[in-house]
Amino acid sequence: MYQLTARDIRRRNRFCVLQAVYAAEGHTSRQEIAQATGLSFATVGNMIAELLDVGVLAELGYDAPGIGRPRARLAINPDRGTLVGVDIAETSIHFDLFDLAMTALRSVEIPVDPTATEPADVAELIIRGIGELTAGEADRVLGIGLSVPGLVEPEGGVSVFSPYWHWHNVPLKALLEQRLPYPLYLDNPLKASTAAHLWFGAGRDVDDLIVVTLRAGVGIGVVIDGMLYRGVTNSAGEWGHTNLVLDGRPCSCGRSGCVEAYVSAPGIVQTLRELAPASPLISNDDALTIAAIAAAAARGDLIACEVIEKTGHYLGVTVANLVNLFNPRTMVFGDLVASHLGEPLLEVTRRVAAHHAMSDPFEAVTLQLSTLPHNPASLGAATFALEGFLADRETFGSIAARRALRTTST
Amino acid sequence: MYQLTARDIRRRNRFCVLQAVYAAEGHTSRQEIAQATGLSFATVGNMIAELLDVGVLAELGYDAPGIGRPRARLAINPDRGTLVGVDIAETSIHFDLFDLAMTALRSVEIPVDPTATEPADVAELIIRGIGELTAGEADRVLGIGLSVPGLVEPEGGVSVFSPYWHWHNVPLKALLEQRLPYPLYLDNPLKASTAAHLWFGAGRDVDDLIVVTLRAGVGIGVVIDGMLYRGVTNSAGEWGHTNLVLDGRPCSCGRSGCVEAYVSAPGIVQTLRELAPASPLISNDDALTIAAIAAAAARGDLIACEVIEKTGHYLGVTVANLVNLFNPRTMVFGDLVASHLGEPLLEVTRRVAAHHAMSDPFEAVTLQLSTLPHNPASLGAATFALEGFLADRETFGSIAARRALRTTST
Ligand SMILES: [Zn+2]
Ligand SMILES: [Zn+2]
Repeated sequence: MYQLTARDIRRRNRFCVLQAVYAAEGHTSRQEIAQATGLSFATVGNMIAELLDVGVLAELGYDAPGIGRPRARLAINPDRGTLVGVDIAETSIHFDLFDLAMTALRSVEIPVDPTATEPADVAELIIRGIGELTAGEADRVLGIGLSVPGLVEPEGGVSVFSPYWHWHNVPLKALLEQRLPYPLYLDNPLKASTAAHLWFGAGRDVDDLIVVTLRAGVGIGVVIDGMLYRGVTNSAGEWGHTNLVLDGRPCSCGRSGCVEAYVSAPGIVQTLRELAPASPLISNDDALTIAAIAAAAARGDLIACEVIEKTGHYLGVTVANLVNLFNPRTMVFGDLVASHLGEPLLEVTRRVAAHHAMSDPFEAVTLQLSTLPHNPASLGAATFALEGFLADRETFGSIAARRALRTTST
Repeated sequence: MYQLTARDIRRRNRFCVLQAVYAAEGHTSRQEIAQATGLSFATVGNMIAELLDVGVLAELGYDAPGIGRPRARLAINPDRGTLVGVDIAETSIHFDLFDLAMTALRSVEIPVDPTATEPADVAELIIRGIGELTAGEADRVLGIGLSVPGLVEPEGGVSVFSPYWHWHNVPLKALLEQRLPYPLYLDNPLKASTAAHLWFGAGRDVDDLIVVTLRAGVGIGVVIDGMLYRGVTNSAGEWGHTNLVLDGRPCSCGRSGCVEAYVSAPGIVQTLRELAPASPLISNDDALTIAAIAAAAARGDLIACEVIEKTGHYLGVTVANLVNLFNPRTMVFGDLVASHLGEPLLEVTRRVAAHHAMSDPFEAVTLQLSTLPHNPASLGAATFALEGFLADRETFGSIAARRALRTTST
């Protein structure tokens, strides 16, 4: 049985308190945090004292309600330091710099030369991008998170398998940390997006959440009891290659009938091709085709509507399976496909899922579109760096020592 | 975010220590428990002191190893009290009495009159069965667990929906507790079987486990980090009615293509009917037919082998989906179908799952047959009563008081 220690609880409560501060968007108070988290006022007080002490929170003066003691206004201290989120994709690498309030300060994007995708080449691009992003204030960086496509082993920072470049067991963190003297955190885009939703999206309101990413590839991230669920080898949520249609369409993975072959951007384009091989909506770029389908459906184009209907049917069946298996509170649909096809796709999905799912878990779940403004993979990667900073013994370990020092010096 | 308290940790560590004692099958020592659980020697010492104090454990003398201090032999104290497990099925109710070492002392079975299945009728049978089972030693019963088919709300003890008798929101616990003055725990057979496997089966060795129950209906129980996973409305694991074949066979639930329509006992009989409508293996009783298929396949009957091949194909595809989604360490297959078709079915399942699952999570998982000797639903129901007894504030709350008393009186 998994062991829990007092330190696990302390870290978890710290995350919990800080998530409530982020969710307040502006400032909040100890009283409001206690209410929002269900933690005791004493626990909240302790956590806040720590977070003030290390400079993650700041006090912004006092509210003076009608009765009772004035309440200290608490907020994230954006100037405590910066976090970097890196989204490594097939054709480009995107870098975002965030202050501690997770406001994006600036971005850098570097194209990937398709003829130079050896680990050393990509590492070089990452180092260059981070150099440009943090120029002049490298010493303010608290940590760097990297979203690496494919299967990732986060503890060791290893890219176990990367589908684009056929990497196998690349020790990316080791390659980088010689030249990037910051804490580095690696995981894949699904896990990163899910962390972003957990801290800054639907996870603010619910503890049991499935984040469905629909783009060139598809996958899910599962949040259980407010924690990202990883499975025993960090492979949990490989929904894209679960079977949807026995002996169905060939999939990019070499199998047939996978969910991804039907509800990814290329899968949806394939559905369009099957319905209307010569459709003028089809272009060489799947993203443009998806956008064209959305626009055509909005003006009532029958073929485009049928593509959305069929896609929603496929999606609804597999969503029903997820609802039956995981019994979550919320499912969030995001990325390319969801942002273009949006509510029309979700409406069909809901209708079909309502038929296929068991009624009790279906009544318990809400299906909704993502509301996150940023690239969730990059924001999520930076969130791993935030979590790492907050969980770090060094960040909090020396509080007692510093307190003692301060007491002595005053 | 889900709140953890010091009490949660204490209870969890207590379960952890006690599971290690059960797993030792005989006696063990503080040193071995610390090794098996990874808990500190101090924590183990505290937990053991508590468990000795309330009589759950007993010291059986000392081992004298070559060097060092002699080690106290620790074992479950079977005479501390008894636990009752009740498995409510469609045609009969099975009652088992266990001592605290979870040795089955005796059983009672009462048939259900199919014309008298109102909640009050069934409650009457339960009260009668428990009366017979515990006659003369009712005061030794520490708790009663009931496995109730269908959807159950364990906190309130409500049968939300029972498929056999079309119960809706029956407050079964409230009906019983007026006349059964014991702590009562209700959940469904899948959850109960999973608890049994968690404490006394494969869960002894692994923390991330899926228990697959294959009988007239099918379903899974999911163990994550050593804890039964319930989802937000206790519906998680409704695998039987996830879709396997789009627009496939009609299912008992009214949908089509559900997993249950292919890998349950009736589903397998249906596969046989489709292959050989006049097969002499077919009888009116699905359990007999499944046994006949197993026996025929063992002597090389081609049709029987083909039924197993097809069933393993269906099972393999859906097992691959579960492996991809949950990334578990072990999957255990149990009940009627698994016990009859056994390794031959599991072999096909492994082969097909190996093709359909992603290689990383498939390499991480072991597919195995159940090794539990008893009716897992009844054992599991009694396990809920055990967990309830161990989690009860009253069981442990008065330790400090009693210790003080003892100190005073000596
Ligand atoms: Zn695939
Ligand atoms: Zn069904």
